[in-house]
Formats: sequence, C-alpha cells, structure tokens
Amino acid sequence: MKKPIRSDIAWSDRTRIVVRGKDLPGEILGHLNLGDMAFLELTGRVPDAKESKLFNAMVVTLVEHGVTPSALAARLTYLGAPEAMQAAVAAGLCGLGSVFVGSTEGVAKMLSETTDINELLERHKRVPGLGHPLHKPVDPRTRRLFEIARETGFYGKYCRAMEEVAKAKNLTLNATGAIGALACELGLDWKSVRGLGVMARAVGLVGHILEESRQPMAEAVWLQVEEEASRHLKP
Amino acid sequence: MKKPIRSDIAWSDRTRIVVRGKDLPGEILGHLNLGDMAFLELTGRVPDAKESKLFNAMVVTLVEHGVTPSALAARLTYLGAPEAMQAAVAAGLCGLGSVFVGSTEGVAKMLSETTDINELLERHKRVPGLGHPLHKPVDPRTRRLFEIARETGFYGKYCRAMEEVAKAKNLTLNATGAIGALACELGLDWKSVRGLGVMARAVGLVGHILEESRQPMAEAVWLQVEEEASRHLKP
Amino acid sequence: MKKPIRSDIAWSDRTRIVVRGKDLPGEILGHLNLGDMAFLELTGRVPDAKESKLFNAMVVTLVEHGVTPSALAARLTYLGAPEAMQAAVAAGLCGLGSVFVGSTEGVAKMLSETTDINELLERHKRVPGLGHPLHKPVDPRTRRLFEIARETGFYGKYCRAMEEVAKAKNLTLNATGAIGALACELGLDWKSVRGLGVMARAVGLVGHILEESRQPMAEAVWLQVEEEASRHLKP
Amino acid sequence: MKKPIRSDIAWSDRTRIVVRGKDLPGEILGHLNLGDMAFLELTGRVPDAKESKLFNAMVVTLVEHGVTPSALAARLTYLGAPEAMQAAVAAGLCGLGSVFVGSTEGVAKMLSETTDINELLERHKRVPGLGHPLHKPVDPRTRRLFEIARETGFYGKYCRAMEEVAKAKNLTLNATGAIGALACELGLDWKSVRGLGVMARAVGLVGHILEESRQPMAEAVWLQVEEEASRHLKP
Repeated sequence: MKKPIRSDIAWSDRTRIVVRGKDLPGEILGHLNLGDMAFLELTGRVPDAKESKLFNAMVVTLVEHGVTPSALAARLTYLGAPEAMQAAVAAGLCGLGSVFVGSTEGVAKMLSETTDINELLERHKRVPGLGHPLHKPVDPRTRRLFEIARETGFYGKYCRAMEEVAKAKNLTLNATGAIGALACELGLDWKSVRGLGVMARAVGLVGHILEESRQPMAEAVWLQVEEEASRHLKP
Repeated sequence: MKKPIRSDIAWSDRTRIVVRGKDLPGEILGHLNLGDMAFLELTGRVPDAKESKLFNAMVVTLVEHGVTPSALAARLTYLGAPEAMQAAVAAGLCGLGSVFVGSTEGVAKMLSETTDINELLERHKRVPGLGHPLHKPVDPRTRRLFEIARETGFYGKYCRAMEEVAKAKNLTLNATGAIGALACELGLDWKSVRGLGVMARAVGLVGHILEESRQPMAEAVWLQVEEEASRHLKP
Repeated sequence: MKKPIRSDIAWSDRTRIVVRGKDLPGEILGHLNLGDMAFLELTGRVPDAKESKLFNAMVVTLVEHGVTPSALAARLTYLGAPEAMQAAVAAGLCGLGSVFVGSTEGVAKMLSETTDINELLERHKRVPGLGHPLHKPVDPRTRRLFEIARETGFYGKYCRAMEEVAKAKNLTLNATGAIGALACELGLDWKSVRGLGVMARAVGLVGHILEESRQPMAEAVWLQVEEEASRHLKP
Repeated sequence: MKKPIRSDIAWSDRTRIVVRGKDLPGEILGHLNLGDMAFLELTGRVPDAKESKLFNAMVVTLVEHGVTPSALAARLTYLGAPEAMQAAVAAGLCGLGSVFVGSTEGVAKMLSETTDINELLERHKRVPGLGHPLHKPVDPRTRRLFEIARETGFYGKYCRAMEEVAKAKNLTLNATGAIGALACELGLDWKSVRGLGVMARAVGLVGHILEESRQPMAEAVWLQVEEEASRHLKP
C-alpha cells in the first residue's frame, strides 16, 4: 500500500501563511524570537517564558566554538566558491557527527532510556557528555546552564543523573552533556537533539564566513598545511 | 608575504570562554536569545531591544516555507543516511542559491549602492525582491515586517525605496525584498544577508527532518517520481 | 606530543607533478583510465589488466541507478542554485549512507572478518548485500560481475561465501553484495568500499544535473509534492 | 501547464537494467571503463577508442592535486563524522566553485562563443585557464594533454585559440585551460565541463579520506591553526 505524502508543518494561500497552526505574520513575527521559533519547529508548540529562556540558552551555547574543524571546513570551502556561501555553511555542517556534536544526542538518548545511575554506569563503558580537554574540573557553560535550569524550574532528574555519573567517573560534565540532560528536562525527542547543535552551528558558521570574507585565513592555512604535509616527498 | 592566520571571534582557557569579547556564560547565556546571538555574530555587538525585535522577526520569517525544494532535498537525503542528519540539513542548505534565498542578498547589495528610484529602475531590468506567485498584491509578511520596522523606528529610506520600486513595477514586494531592505536599515553588511536565510532555514530543516523521522514521505515521493519519470522508457 | 601533518599522496614543483610516486604527465595520463586512477588512489599501485577490467566493472555498476533519492536531491538543489552545480552533486552524495550504498561497505567489513558460512549466519541476523525489491531471484548485475570475476581469475572464497549465504537465506545476492565480495577479492580495505559508490555516483549525478539543465523536472516534482503534502491542511 | 516529470537516463524491470539505451550487464559492464561511462553519461553515447583515450586523460588529470583546500575540508569533516564518509566527500566538493575548478567551465563557455583571438582578448580582460603559481612557463599537464590530443586527432581550433591567447598574454596555459579547450574539441556541452572536475575530484577525495583514516592529519591541522589564529586574543 502506498504511503501518504503528507506534511503537517505549514500551508499558505493568497493572503495567509500558517506555520504549525499559527498565523505567521499575526502570531509569530514580532512575538517569537529565533530560539522560540526553533522550539515551535521541534515541539509543535510555542514555549512559555521559562522554556524560552532555557531553550535559547541551550542553543546559544552551541553557536560559537571558535576555530573548529567545522569552521575551518567552511572557510576552506568559501575560498574556492565565494559565490555559494550556503555551500560553505553546508560543508561546515557535514562534520557535526558522532565525534563532536553527536554526544549531545547520545546523552539525550541514554537518559531517555534510564536515569538510574547504576544502570547508566553498567550500560555505558564510555558515557557521552563527560570529559573536556580544557575545561576541568568544571565546564563554565554547564554551571551556567544548570543555574538557568534552576531559575526556570527545569533542574530535575536528568540533570541530577548526569551530575552523579560525572562525579562517579571523576570527569567534567561538559556542555554537550548538560544540554543533552536539559533537552530531556524540556521533553524534547532525543532524535531532535543533534539538530540543536546543527541549527546553532549554522548561525556560527555564517559568522565565520563573514569574517573570512573580510579577513581571510583559509588560503594561508592551505598553503602552510600543504607545504608542511608534502615537504618530506620533495627531492 | 605570508598572510596572517587570525580570527577575532572567540577564545577560551581553562575557566573562561569569550565570544566576540563577551563572557559566554556570564554575559551571553540567559541574556541573549538565538536571534540576538546571530546579530552578535554578524555585527560584533549585542542588539538593543528594538534591533532585537526587528532582527528576530526577519530571521524568523525565513525559517519555514513548508515543503520547499530544500526541505525535499533534506528529506530525501535523510532517507538514505538517517544516521547523519547533519548531512541532510547540509544537503537542504546547498540549494539556497541565486534562485530562492539569494534574492535577499541581491536586494541588500542593490540598495547599498543606491536608493534613488530612477537609478534603481535604470540599473536593474529585473529588480530582485519583487513578485510572488501566490501572495498578490500584498505579501502579508512584508506588511507585518514593515509594521514592526515602524514600531521599532527602523522604517527608513531603504524600505521606502523598495516600496516605490514595487509600485513602479506593479509587483508584490515579497518577504525577501522586505528583509533585504531591513538588513540595510539595520546596517548589516550585504555580504552577510544571504546568511540570514541560511541560518534560518537550518532551523526549519531540522524541523522537517524530525517530521520525516516520525511521518516519512521521502520514500513515497521517490517511488512516485521514479515511476512517473521513467514510465515512457519501459517497453 | 604533536602528531605530524603529513600526506604521501602527491607533490609537485615547477616542472614535475608526482601522484602516488608516478609522474602524472609521463606515467599516468594516456596510460590509466579513470577507474585505474581510482584503483591507484585506493591501493597506491597501478592495477594490472585483469584488476583493471574487474575494478572498472565494479565502479561502473554503481554509476547510474536512475531517478534515485540521491539524484532527486541533486536535481532539487540545482533548481535553487544552478550557479553551483558542485553543491548539487554534494547534496546528492550526502544521502549515500547506511540505507543504500552503505551495504557494500557492510558486506566487505563482514567478509573481512570471516568467510565461514555458519559464523556469518550466526553473527548477522540481517546479512547486508541480500535482497532486492525488483531483481528476483537473480540480480543481473551480480551474474555479470561474477562472470567477469571468473574471466579475470578473481572469483574466490568471498564470492562463494556470499553466494552460499544468499542461498541459505533464499534471497537475491544483489549488486552491492557482489561488489562488497569482489572488493575483498581484490584486497581492498573495507574502509574504502563505501568510497566506490561515492565516486561512482558522483559521475552519475553529473549526468542527472546535465539532463536537469536541459529537460528540467525538479520544479514539477516540487510543485506536485507540495500540493499533495499540504492539501489536507488547507481550509 | 504542468511540466512533465521525465528522465531518459535509465530504467529497469525484473530482469533488465538499461542505461542510456544500453543493457547495463550485457553492453556496459566489462566493456566500458569508468571514464567511458562518464562520457556516456554526458553525451548519451559510447566513446570510440580515441575519444576514450583523450577523455580519460582529461578527467584523470583532475583527480589529484594533493593537499588542496577541498581535500582539507573533506579531512576536517571526516574528523568529526567518520561514520559518514560520503558527507566528507560532499564537503570537499562544495568548494569546487568559481576560484579553482570553475575555470575549466569558463574556458569551455568562452571558446563555445568564439575562437577568434582578437575577440577573445577584447571580451575577456582576465582570460580563464591562464596562469599558474608554480608551473611556469609550461604546465606539464597541458603539454601532455595536447600531445594526446594530437595522437588522437583532436588537436584543433579550440586548442590553437587557447595557445595563441596564452602566448599573447605571456601566461602559462594551465591544465584547466587545456581541458576546457579539449572539452570543446570533443563536442561536450560547456554546461557539463565543471562536472568533469567534480566527478574526478570525488575520486581523489575518497583517496584522501582513506589516507586520513590510516594516517590522520586533520586533528593536528585543527589544533595548530586554532592556536595560531586565537593566540592574539588570549591574555
């Protein structure tokens, strides 16, 4: 039997544009900020003020991590195709997989299965969301995000479980671990959690490409790396 | 002479994370929403309340346009690689070029050169930001965005120029035209304007992929199109 | 300790260009076809005539599968950004993940661990490379590829193992299963096997985009799907 | 009027797979190499022996240029998402735009308009396909490609025009210039010419990712660049 081709997200006619059941001009524009709109996209409903504050803080945390592999990939792509900056952002997003941004998703999935500390420790030899090369013993983003969670009433069993696991493992609870836990507190589907990093980083990558257009570094990176990488081959 | 490898966007050490000169945990998280953070990335400064309202409305407008070619490309990509949703978003972004989202950039570039109506009409046989297949004679997003611009004090010469050109051409001033003009009112670099659509659409694409994971349509689209496209070849 | 930045693939100076230790103009151009060059990239050596025949047949098999999700994603991307056809090919490649092309890699990895039929059946509840919605009971590509393998002396234990597993499961041994086995016969690293599909499909996608530029279908697909997907929402 | 949804590239049923009118197992596999298959995709016909030799040499030339921005983008992407190597290749392709690979297309387009030297010089202030930072005064690939063109009877007015323009400008006729001219000699549509670089580079990028999986450099590149780029910001 043929599956239906159907989307419930949006429709429009000559005078109306409706997104997730809301009138875009009348109920969304001027009322929702970009983070609220993302919340609407992921949950189908408008966040209240407390949800908005926490959710915005979570995605804002993920926007900018400086000169990451993803930012470098975007800049190197822009060097070759400055007429297609959307492709440079796309190239930067392609690397947000299991190694960097994926841990947020891993944490949310893990916690959506159990918050029992013993079970968590038994099931996961390597717990996602723990450890940081630089921020030790405390990731300052985690501290601040949990502070906002307490203010807004969302600090609960998922946050506690992650803090206890981090303590048991004697590792930093990093920002991706905190955000994974907070996504559970907000009731987000773990399948949408990697998406938080993807949308946030898209914002940051636009910033990097704009800087690259004014103050380029990609060409210098390329020439320096090429010289270093192939030096041993040259006679 | 070797060009420098240098970025002024962010740095961190063991206890601090600084983005655009602001302490991320202390000055950004809980204070800026996602749209404000985007504004910070594009301009290097935090928007005031009025700028925040207008800028958020502009990017929110671009988040969701329903089942677009970009959303379809993302869903078809997710069908083949559900383990790599970031690549599905990337695929969706790759098409935000000259035909759809690029017109926002075109408007901003055009208006940054002149706001003289006669010059505009002379220089541009086909003015970007005008016309809409469905929303005629008025695009309801344009009306609402310009209303917010008036409220916040940003309705100025760029908006007026676009309205006059639309009138002269007897065409709808569409949302991309309005946003291009408003980007100029906010003093944004035209080079960053395509980025507004790219970051906004990344948010929307995550929503589409989440819907696709729950209520798939990509496989049905594929099978239906393949059957229709190759029917004439079959004996 | 800092890891080295080093690549052994290629170097050049004013008069020479050397790839994998071969002089590009003198030893490669006019001597190697594109499949041979791919073999050189993956193994570091030039294939002999038999390896060349088999390897070329394997990758050629993967070039063109008609109107696939990947081809549709590429065409829909080209619709929005015709000035950046490389991004359209990239979008098409992004979906070559676990569902479609990944099975070739799965087969090669599986067979590189064991060719014992009982172990294979025990370890893998769902054996990759088996089954086809259309080509039953025999995939004509598999028959032909194994014929070429016999001619060139490469039909061996990996091919036999896949044929026996397919028989035990009473399923078609499909082309990705055959190619995974043949990759093992040729001694290719299983980590490179998904790459066969990726490079081959890049060739095919260029063909689809060229057809799209002359005889477009993406816009019609979009409008038809959008109408069908959102019909239920409209008042 | 609704445009048709139609593709003439391929079809299949239970026992047959037909690509461009040829039986895939019977007429293509074992008969065409990967370059020939690409020629079939671009022109709809099988190349003869001379066309095959020249066309394969052209695409083989474009496969491998060492540690390019494109190869670096692919490697940096793979670092973050090793489970999605197709996305790493896609990221690498995204940068094949106007700056690097696009010049091949520019040459083919230019020569398809005129081969009159005076007109070429008048119309194009900056002629694409000329100049090389390293290979001066002669690009050894150009010399070899034109040698193959003479052998196969394809050295004609397009090659001559490019050689004369290069002489008039006192610049190296680089490989992209030679390939653009040769694409015209073979009667290829200029719209397909950027595709030659895209498909060829996909082959090369798979090679780079395989090397990265065995002998990684992306992490070291990242850490070194990040340190250098942000040093000036740290207190």
